[in-house]
Amino acid sequence: MSFFPASLEVLIDKLASLPGVGTKSAQRLAFHILSLPQGEAEAIAEALLHARRSVKRCGVCQNLTDTEVCPICGNERRDRGTICVVSDPKGVLAIERAREYSGVYHVLHGVISPMNRIGPDDLTLRELVERVSRGGVEEVIMATNPDTEGETTARYTSRLLAPFGVKITRLAYGIPVGASLEFADDATLTRALEGRQEY
Amino acid sequence: MSFFPASLEVLIDKLASLPGVGTKSAQRLAFHILSLPQGEAEAIAEALLHARRSVKRCGVCQNLTDTEVCPICGNERRDRGTICVVSDPKGVLAIERAREYSGVYHVLHGVISPMNRIGPDDLTLRELVERVSRGGVEEVIMATNPDTEGETTARYTSRLLAPFGVKITRLAYGIPVGASLEFADDATLTRALEGRQEY
Repeated sequence: MSFFPASLEVLIDKLASLPGVGTKSAQRLAFHILSLPQGEAEAIAEALLHARRSVKRCGVCQNLTDTEVCPICGNERRDRGTICVVSDPKGVLAIERAREYSGVYHVLHGVISPMNRIGPDDLTLRELVERVSRGGVEEVIMATNPDTEGETTARYTSRLLAPFGVKITRLAYGIPVGASLEFADDATLTRALEGRQEY
Repeated sequence: MSFFPASLEVLIDKLASLPGVGTKSAQRLAFHILSLPQGEAEAIAEALLHARRSVKRCGVCQNLTDTEVCPICGNERRDRGTICVVSDPKGVLAIERAREYSGVYHVLHGVISPMNRIGPDDLTLRELVERVSRGGVEEVIMATNPDTEGETTARYTSRLLAPFGVKITRLAYGIPVGASLEFADDATLTRALEGRQEY
């Protein structure tokens, strides 16, 4: 038996269906929302609807955007000959923050993960192959996460692109800048040694 | 500079304004919402609006309800001579779960907290005094959380009600001191009800 009004139960259920939100957090969020001024509660709902309706994928790089072509793909000063492949929009955000990269991106929207039943067809690989096949691309930098799934996805993608004769690279592995050698794990140290650069 | 579409930034900001949701969680939630089918995203927004619009306070006990009088106050079999005073609706839920209590409730919607500038007038104490002054009440059980603010609120309330000559009791310390009522297990809550002490 439920002791909350039905509409409150529905809200708690909906919030609890979001990732990382348990029943207790959902209750806390729901009570908070009920305590908000009507206008503020409506603003949250409106933001949710507006984002869901207006945000789509860039027709070129598949990154999230509310225009036909995203600001990066639309920027004439970006080098269209270099495509950096990331698994999700947060990857674009991370690399842009470094202010070092002047090429364009391709967002896969996932990684190959048999455990989660995500195969190559669930990613935007078809769009990437089309882009590369149209020519003008000199280098594709694989920048998926350095974990098993990210590695699998990077290797699969590089094999897909091999027939087009473009240079395919992978972000360097190594010790994070500012980190201490003693806290680096064995795998990272091995990769850092393998990838050592001449001065 | 922002690299997300404006409407996505707005959604992330709104989500990050909720209690216990940081920027990273807000991003994760926003990306999840964008990945939902349009209908499901609309259902979340609708649940939010519907709950905010339809949920109000019971005219008798001040608990949240979507009817004029809540199901507990409207239940003829509940003993109206006993009022259990809780700080919030989660307290009602916790005690109802123990299936031991057959009286009615009064929800204060807060506790006296000078730190957070919450005084007696911010609670539903006026409504409680009115209820008790109308007569027919034999016992008022104080069931605010067993922490400093809950104790202060219980003591303040008991002094307010003293002139009406009703028996005023406090939940027994079967509840671990310092813990929150909503996390108490059924057995502990039952003990706390059985061992309630007169002020």
